[in-house]
Amino acid sequence: MTTAREAPDEAPVTPRSAGFSMPAEWAPHERCLISWPTAAREYWGDFYYLAQATHAAVARAVARFEPVLVIANPGEGGNARSYCGSDNIEVVELPIDDSWIRDNGPSFLLGPDGARAVADFPFNSWGEKYLPYDKDAGVTELLCEHFGVRRFDAPMVLEGGAFTVDGEGTLITTESCLLHPSRNPTLTREEQEEILREYLGVETVIWLKAGRTEATDTDGHIDGVCHFVAPGRVILHLVHEERHPDYENFRENRRRLEEATDARGRRIEILAMDRRTMIDIGGKHLTVTYMNSYQANGGLVVPTAGTVYDDYALERLREVFPEREVVGVPTPVLAYGGGGIHCITQQVPAPDGGRR
Amino acid sequence: MTTAREAPDEAPVTPRSAGFSMPAEWAPHERCLISWPTAAREYWGDFYYLAQATHAAVARAVARFEPVLVIANPGEGGNARSYCGSDNIEVVELPIDDSWIRDNGPSFLLGPDGARAVADFPFNSWGEKYLPYDKDAGVTELLCEHFGVRRFDAPMVLEGGAFTVDGEGTLITTESCLLHPSRNPTLTREEQEEILREYLGVETVIWLKAGRTEATDTDGHIDGVCHFVAPGRVILHLVHEERHPDYENFRENRRRLEEATDARGRRIEILAMDRRTMIDIGGKHLTVTYMNSYQANGGLVVPTAGTVYDDYALERLREVFPEREVVGVPTPVLAYGGGGIHCITQQVPAPDGGRR
Repeated sequence: MTTAREAPDEAPVTPRSAGFSMPAEWAPHERCLISWPTAAREYWGDFYYLAQATHAAVARAVARFEPVLVIANPGEGGNARSYCGSDNIEVVELPIDDSWIRDNGPSFLLGPDGARAVADFPFNSWGEKYLPYDKDAGVTELLCEHFGVRRFDAPMVLEGGAFTVDGEGTLITTESCLLHPSRNPTLTREEQEEILREYLGVETVIWLKAGRTEATDTDGHIDGVCHFVAPGRVILHLVHEERHPDYENFRENRRRLEEATDARGRRIEILAMDRRTMIDIGGKHLTVTYMNSYQANGGLVVPTAGTVYDDYALERLREVFPEREVVGVPTPVLAYGGGGIHCITQQVPAPDGGRR
Repeated sequence: MTTAREAPDEAPVTPRSAGFSMPAEWAPHERCLISWPTAAREYWGDFYYLAQATHAAVARAVARFEPVLVIANPGEGGNARSYCGSDNIEVVELPIDDSWIRDNGPSFLLGPDGARAVADFPFNSWGEKYLPYDKDAGVTELLCEHFGVRRFDAPMVLEGGAFTVDGEGTLITTESCLLHPSRNPTLTREEQEEILREYLGVETVIWLKAGRTEATDTDGHIDGVCHFVAPGRVILHLVHEERHPDYENFRENRRRLEEATDARGRRIEILAMDRRTMIDIGGKHLTVTYMNSYQANGGLVVPTAGTVYDDYALERLREVFPEREVVGVPTPVLAYGGGGIHCITQQVPAPDGGRR
């Protein structure tokens, strides 16, 4: 593998300098990556069986739209295969600690010739919240070997769920996560922006104030509150109740987006999502926002509460994504684990990125 | 609905006297019934979410082969729909207590003209083990109204998982369940046989000694140890370890089948199933036997452990059912609940029963 460290001259070869940038999530995918819940870790506790059943249900839902590659810890591939079946789903064994591959896995890039590469941002377990995490931190390198793609070592801690890109030069993120002292305390906002530009190939970085207050594991990832839906268009989570702990932050998020201009000089159209459902699981009272979805080829796979209220939210998402088949998968256990379907998936773009 | 009680003369009109009998499970199905886990009942405890996810996974697996009708408690249809989706799955709301419809639901019969009827055996919650059970005891009558089919009130407590028929006059059951004092203490073995003949339209009753010792909830249902696979052919669960608590009982089961003659005068071919896997769930150490399967149209939906050992068992089942697509669904929570996939499904035969 060629990495930035092997560059011949002083200035590191960055993806941007090599002509790479990250495509939007709606660019055609070759496949979707999902990490399999790991038996050795106590993380899921009594919900381990439910975590397996739920990851399998998500894998099967995604597999209706595109091939899925499930990454299972060595020795646990048979378990994954038993749950996932083989309809458009393959299993590979690689060492992992946990199953939130959006955050510890590869961010795939495309070059002008359609070649693929990966931006490998160091993973520190959301500010060392869950230990150990060395296998999760190393799996991106193993996946680059698996796929035979070039890997760029990025000089900044960053989780894949902490940003959204439009594939046309614009990235949106949250201050609550990226400026949290547990991530990159020695880097200024401007230095982080420069690294994002160089390693994801973007021009414009838009900072929202915060993700959800409830999202303590991630310090408020953007993928719980805002996603690019199309160039110049986002879906944005809003709450109307003034007493809601997110009310002020979400108003400020909206204000910033309303004032923002993207890399192409466009104003950003905001599609509001205000539907949500509360669930109780494992002694926690948690919000299902329906925001943490995965944009599969032609589909949108949505984390739901598993209640009659889901219909109301899915109806709104069908308005926001009129050209996608919107499929809900009940995922209370992912809410319990602190995430959703976007958090446990990662797209591998098709080699030509649909640009040809 | 016409019932036996409305018969004009002294002797009750029985299914047999009206020309009805129960088809084998492999006769073509119109659909499959599955009851949805009920939120109000404390039965599943912390595994309630897993029970929902698992019933949905079974419903989706069966729906690959035939339409599924999910029966949800009033108010819980939206929950069921959220989990099951709508691909070949419908939901109807009827009052139920629990989700083991094989045991409390209708046993469908076919008449010589292809008409359908139902034998409604009183359900007493496996000998009043779980209370209350009045809604489960009443759902067969509601389903007969739903489908507009004639219902015959049978004068004997009997669960659907307690017998297997070949559709050609032979029934196999276990003494451990049917002769257990919690079921029909006032009926002799011969009186029970006579009721089985009259209400299921069989000629020959073969008594095995016992189901699995571990199957304490059902007192050893036949559907954990033996199923008709075809006329004159059964799959039979065996264990080879002399110290296994089922060793003597299963040897005796085999001996009785080896000596038996079916209603057509045939000896019965025995296909042995000796593969099993242990799982741990909810503090219980339980056996997955792979026996408690559902014969869908062209398919066999098998309860699995969710481990690499499943392949070994599914391989054997593909030998036993060479013309069926064998699909495993990991169902540890059903083992925890005391059953498998056969226990949570009930076939509705096609009106002509495939006889035309």
